[in-house]
Amino acid sequence: MKGLLGGKGANLAEMSSIGLSVPPGFTVTTAACLDFVENSNTINQQIKDEVLLALQEVEKNSGKKFGDIKNPLLFSVRSGARVSMPGMMDTVLNLGLNDDSVIGLAELTKNPRFAWDSYRRFIQMYANVVMGFNVAILESTLEDLKEAREVELDTQLTADDLQELVEVYKRIIFEETGVSFPTDPMEQLWRAISAVFSSWNNPRAIKYREINDIDHSWGTAVNVQSMVFGNMGDDCATGVCFTRDPSTGEKKFFGEFLINAQGEDVVAGIRTPQPINDLSKNESNKGLQTLQEAMPKVYDELVEVYTRLEKHYKDMQDIEFTIENDKLFILQTRNGKRTAAAAVKIAVDLVNEKILSKEEAILKINPEDINQLLHPRLDPSATKNVLAQGLPASPGAGSGVITFTSEKATALNESGVKVLLVRQETSPEDIAGMVASEGILTARGGMTSHAAVVARGMGKPCVAGCSEIQINYATLTLKVNGREFKEGDHLTIDGATGEVIEGKVPTIAAEISEDFANFMSWADEFRKLEIRTNADNPEDSETARNFGAQGIGLCRTEHMFFEAERILAVREMIYAKELKEREKALAKLLPFQREDFIGIFTAMDGKPVNIRLLDPPLHEFLPHTKEDREALAEYLEIEVQLIDERCEQLHEFNPMLGHRGCRLGVTFPEIYKMQTRAIIEAALECKKKGVEVLPEIMIPLISLKGELVLLKEECIKEIETIFKETGEEVKYKLGTMIELPRAAITAGSIAPEADFFSFGTNDLTQTTFGLSRDDSGKFLPEYINGGLVPVDPFVSLDQEGVGFLVNHACVEGRKSNPKIHMGICGEHGGEPRSIQFCHDIGLDYVSCSPYRVPIARLAAAQAALRD
Amino acid sequence: MKGLLGGKGANLAEMSSIGLSVPPGFTVTTAACLDFVENSNTINQQIKDEVLLALQEVEKNSGKKFGDIKNPLLFSVRSGARVSMPGMMDTVLNLGLNDDSVIGLAELTKNPRFAWDSYRRFIQMYANVVMGFNVAILESTLEDLKEAREVELDTQLTADDLQELVEVYKRIIFEETGVSFPTDPMEQLWRAISAVFSSWNNPRAIKYREINDIDHSWGTAVNVQSMVFGNMGDDCATGVCFTRDPSTGEKKFFGEFLINAQGEDVVAGIRTPQPINDLSKNESNKGLQTLQEAMPKVYDELVEVYTRLEKHYKDMQDIEFTIENDKLFILQTRNGKRTAAAAVKIAVDLVNEKILSKEEAILKINPEDINQLLHPRLDPSATKNVLAQGLPASPGAGSGVITFTSEKATALNESGVKVLLVRQETSPEDIAGMVASEGILTARGGMTSHAAVVARGMGKPCVAGCSEIQINYATLTLKVNGREFKEGDHLTIDGATGEVIEGKVPTIAAEISEDFANFMSWADEFRKLEIRTNADNPEDSETARNFGAQGIGLCRTEHMFFEAERILAVREMIYAKELKEREKALAKLLPFQREDFIGIFTAMDGKPVNIRLLDPPLHEFLPHTKEDREALAEYLEIEVQLIDERCEQLHEFNPMLGHRGCRLGVTFPEIYKMQTRAIIEAALECKKKGVEVLPEIMIPLISLKGELVLLKEECIKEIETIFKETGEEVKYKLGTMIELPRAAITAGSIAPEADFFSFGTNDLTQTTFGLSRDDSGKFLPEYINGGLVPVDPFVSLDQEGVGFLVNHACVEGRKSNPKIHMGICGEHGGEPRSIQFCHDIGLDYVSCSPYRVPIARLAAAQAALRD
Repeated sequence: MKGLLGGKGANLAEMSSIGLSVPPGFTVTTAACLDFVENSNTINQQIKDEVLLALQEVEKNSGKKFGDIKNPLLFSVRSGARVSMPGMMDTVLNLGLNDDSVIGLAELTKNPRFAWDSYRRFIQMYANVVMGFNVAILESTLEDLKEAREVELDTQLTADDLQELVEVYKRIIFEETGVSFPTDPMEQLWRAISAVFSSWNNPRAIKYREINDIDHSWGTAVNVQSMVFGNMGDDCATGVCFTRDPSTGEKKFFGEFLINAQGEDVVAGIRTPQPINDLSKNESNKGLQTLQEAMPKVYDELVEVYTRLEKHYKDMQDIEFTIENDKLFILQTRNGKRTAAAAVKIAVDLVNEKILSKEEAILKINPEDINQLLHPRLDPSATKNVLAQGLPASPGAGSGVITFTSEKATALNESGVKVLLVRQETSPEDIAGMVASEGILTARGGMTSHAAVVARGMGKPCVAGCSEIQINYATLTLKVNGREFKEGDHLTIDGATGEVIEGKVPTIAAEISEDFANFMSWADEFRKLEIRTNADNPEDSETARNFGAQGIGLCRTEHMFFEAERILAVREMIYAKELKEREKALAKLLPFQREDFIGIFTAMDGKPVNIRLLDPPLHEFLPHTKEDREALAEYLEIEVQLIDERCEQLHEFNPMLGHRGCRLGVTFPEIYKMQTRAIIEAALECKKKGVEVLPEIMIPLISLKGELVLLKEECIKEIETIFKETGEEVKYKLGTMIELPRAAITAGSIAPEADFFSFGTNDLTQTTFGLSRDDSGKFLPEYINGGLVPVDPFVSLDQEGVGFLVNHACVEGRKSNPKIHMGICGEHGGEPRSIQFCHDIGLDYVSCSPYRVPIARLAAAQAALRD
Repeated sequence: MKGLLGGKGANLAEMSSIGLSVPPGFTVTTAACLDFVENSNTINQQIKDEVLLALQEVEKNSGKKFGDIKNPLLFSVRSGARVSMPGMMDTVLNLGLNDDSVIGLAELTKNPRFAWDSYRRFIQMYANVVMGFNVAILESTLEDLKEAREVELDTQLTADDLQELVEVYKRIIFEETGVSFPTDPMEQLWRAISAVFSSWNNPRAIKYREINDIDHSWGTAVNVQSMVFGNMGDDCATGVCFTRDPSTGEKKFFGEFLINAQGEDVVAGIRTPQPINDLSKNESNKGLQTLQEAMPKVYDELVEVYTRLEKHYKDMQDIEFTIENDKLFILQTRNGKRTAAAAVKIAVDLVNEKILSKEEAILKINPEDINQLLHPRLDPSATKNVLAQGLPASPGAGSGVITFTSEKATALNESGVKVLLVRQETSPEDIAGMVASEGILTARGGMTSHAAVVARGMGKPCVAGCSEIQINYATLTLKVNGREFKEGDHLTIDGATGEVIEGKVPTIAAEISEDFANFMSWADEFRKLEIRTNADNPEDSETARNFGAQGIGLCRTEHMFFEAERILAVREMIYAKELKEREKALAKLLPFQREDFIGIFTAMDGKPVNIRLLDPPLHEFLPHTKEDREALAEYLEIEVQLIDERCEQLHEFNPMLGHRGCRLGVTFPEIYKMQTRAIIEAALECKKKGVEVLPEIMIPLISLKGELVLLKEECIKEIETIFKETGEEVKYKLGTMIELPRAAITAGSIAPEADFFSFGTNDLTQTTFGLSRDDSGKFLPEYINGGLVPVDPFVSLDQEGVGFLVNHACVEGRKSNPKIHMGICGEHGGEPRSIQFCHDIGLDYVSCSPYRVPIARLAAAQAALRD
């Protein structure tokens, strides 16, 4: 039902059906939204007729009449897309009020102040959301009035004040727009529904969908629901609650509310909300009365409701409620956003509580979210100068230079600077800046504020509502307890504790919780794909192994060439004009490479290690600075000019398509010979020490079967030579990367020559699209924004194009060599949708960076379970 | 039979079977050669047994005995591959002679001088070819002896002199090699056969095969044939003749011979050969006696033979003959090498003579050879300072700096310098230098000399046997009639007249003969493929149209951007930071582009013109020199530094995979909008003038269907706007290039959006192989030499890889859009094997450069006839 009714609409319907007290209402479907968009933003007559019918039904149920002067039915009109898009779609409350019905409402509720305040709020929201009016001018009128009345809070204004304000609002709107504020409730409703539908395509919504990979073609539903009022007096309240702790996953009922308020007062972060119970108390709200204390009966009912909801939805719930004259209404419930740690704990607990099966638990967690668990945290032993304490809104540690605007954060990040975004409070306009930041620090707002919710979703550290800091946007400074920091100064936040710390604090790697370990072991029970890692040194190999990697799928030998003591020998090799000179330089590199491999083999004891022979174009190793060139000239005892000339000679127009990969092996066979020797000698040495070594030698960038045949032959010849020299042998595999379209196309003829295929989907994406990863930044974002590609093909494997080639190679390769072992080692190897694809076409493994190994394990398990 | 017996062997067998007088012999097959190569260069016993049996048969037929002292049977041992490889395989004559049989031969022929001369020649050839002995030392001994005897010619040496020489030769060989010269005729034979087999893989032979795309796996046969002697006295002679003129194709019996000589004397170019008849006379031999005069009866027999041979082989023949004591023997006949003009004339004449059908005539001519007809010749109105006159050995005009070695010619050519290779005479070692040259000039040798034959095959101009020039290899100078030219000076040759001309002479385009026009019109009757051209301006369009192009398949708009008056506006467009600025610059370009298209549409009146919208990365248009940058800064009234910064910003790591093609159209829609407007406005203006315009607008470099949908929509919008503005309409087509693997893979979904697909096989080859055309020079030659690729994939379409994608796109495209028009517009569109492929997979057209249009027409006809 979510597709048609949207998330909120479906939930409301479902809550209704399980007997919860939900304010009566109806949902205008996403289909109507799509129809609206297609018909140049007009609602067609059939839909109008259906809305009118539904409206009559609500009138019957509620005993109120829409537009009635005496007992007016008022509506909230909210968007509701298939997935929750918090804060991004627009909402109008109190719809149906006008100059007549506000009087009726005042008389009916015996609360003129409430009636006029509702009307005032309605006009402001409606002007903003539906009429596109800049409400700053209305807000400043409100501030002016408060100043004139010498009061601080809105609630201190009288009914007369608010009535006066309504008149002023309406006058300003007429003056500014030339249009009177609409007083016909039906007109209000049609325009509000249209505004929600239109807001599906506002830039913020589009941006959110892009970041979260949400389909632009889904559309939003509109939920039209009778208003219930949390602001009708002190027997009224409104709040939000989580059935478990969204930060830790702890089984604790947890929430915030405000007496005599409407919903937006809680999430806007302007008033500090009260805890609903003792468990919800924290530093900033511990002095405030709980709901349990203030309204114990309602609280008990809420507890009863949440238990029922959690069992029904088999998940932690995020519930919005309103209490109207001591009566509890559930406005909304949804699966709560949570940190990855919480997600894992909740899933494991729900399995232990027999609410979920293991399989269901595994499918519950978005593999990408695990990312959060695997990031470093502050080193507890480091000296920290804690400047202030805010709310621990999203766990993890973040450090960067502070900046105060989203634009600046984005710009700095693009130039490679790590930033910490500091805002009074965040809004949807800040999303790009949040994405670009290491962490978010806000001065206002609670655990359910925009900053907190969005940061948790992103897996970014966030400290929210840190009232000790004062932000001055004009001078770009932040004051905290008498100290001042300027834009560009370094701060650190700890999203797990809420601490704001001076300078840059060292971090340590994530630790794996017992719950997480359990959960991952369940994933391992189900998955079919082997998970390997891309690692080039013993440390990364170790990390990956600890994360559950079952081997190395890609060890890039060239990364080892850049270390200071080696680079001169590498350059000597490049500058060699004759075989003998080149062999001399290679002889210097051999011991380094052998040591590298000994380290990696030892770290991966008992697990296969796939080593790719030299791949990048030689000129990547050239000296780029004048100093480097002089140093090389001195080392080689030749003129600097000769170095410059050789650099010129080695220059390539399109290095990605140039003299690299196995082409180096063909023209300079001695390079691969040296590398093969280093691998096999290292393997023999490890074997002698009792390490179980499973080396795999991989030839990169072949486009022709003949390349593999030739280079394989040369490798084997060298290996046989070493076996004869040493009298020792070791088992090894020899295979190739499939990373060019031609290799994929002709895989059937290549496969009999290879023990394995490793799909290099980065390069394969570049050549299949004709798209340089290094250069695509100039236009690819526009493609993604414009919907020309659904997602960056370097992030998620393009299944239609690149996937066609991978699948073709897999099918043809297995036909001619059924024993061949196949996997992918591009960045896609750690991306859940790509992993699903790899599972579907029957690859044997994926290989990804160490920190993505657990993500891959989970994604592989999900793929197997969906099968 | 050619595959097994080789060309010569098959011909000998065939000549025998039609009753010609052929010296008895046998052929050792190519299968034996392959067996030999596989078995580490040894002849196996079964083959030996078969050779012995055949030998006995020859002995029976000839009445002589191999190794006999009294009446020795002597053999020629020659290579004979499937196709003729002139001068490249080694030959041994007079095999079977030794110290005993030489005496028998002397007695039998009553000509001791001949016997000892034959023995002397045999030892020299055998030492060279079979023993790998450097014969320079033997030759200098000969020279010494002539000096001692105070004679000039070999023929002036007496029998005693030659006998003495034989002893000296044998002694030198023993001293230098430590091995006696073999005197056992059977040993001589086995070693000679082995040497011929081995010579299949000598570097010169390999090089020749590479240049001529001959399969390395064919092997060579060995023809063992009884010797007949043209050097037994003045009633003996040897010669070569062509049944028609190999330069012009004229039906004239044509040849050269020498009295009292062996075959190699004629082709070596050391003595100027005599004409066989009056028709064969030219400037250098007109004073010499003809065969018709010297031996009228034999001449008549030769005429009778050639007529029979030409009818039998249905082609012009190149015949080698020897007259032994007034008896004519045909040693060899083969389809004669010829110029393209001759090939066409001969084919047309043979059809007219009812010897060939049109279909057979079309299949006779190698399309590549037509290339020769289409090259420019010297402008007849130009002032020419003719320095000397040689033989018109291969037609066409060539101009370049003179150089005297093959190595130097190759090196200069690689650095972009046009060279003319000047040699005393050429040898197979010079082939690489000949390939690298604009033309060849030799001081010695006739019309059938190595230089002449090879140059004709290559379609290069050649002036041979120009005895007026004196070449000094030591000082690298050329003297001609008192003037001296140094290496690096410019000369021009006219291969049609034999003239050697000072400096650089202007050339004019080829003219099409009536025969050629007829021939091509026959080709057009049979071909199914439409032939279009790649042309960017009215002149090229005109040329192509005259060559028979049926439309333009690729008009590259960017080539028009480089002209002086436009490039500043182009740069202004690139530097524009805002849409308005960019539109201003584009408005300047619009009238230029419109004029371009008017010119092209007019030239192609009534034929379709396919225009590709802007394709290359913008930074190709950047100012590369300091002066250009300053000029642009002044033009734009900005600082030079800003220009430099923008250049930096626009730099791409891999421009081939960068911001180009339709990606420019997506990010800067106003560029394609301007181009579309220029095309349509030009079309409307032409239409008004009565020109029939068929414009086709082509979107380049799509990888996603969405790109085409978007850009097509924008084009159509602009076109509709113009139609409304002008009240006029014109028909047009809109389609796309398929030049990226992803476009080919997803062609099925793209096709419904396109009126046509044009396969850009250059780019498709680059991306399918992951190979930059600009950078592949560093390793691709090594790949071709090493046999890793059979042929440069940029020259001939890689059917297994790139062809898979083209075929896939063709099949899938037609499935979803049966009306789609498809062709290729890469360089491959003019390459015969690629054209065959295009025909086979059912494309509608190929498009190639103007000068290749006739080649494509012929290749397409051949493909259709082979179907």
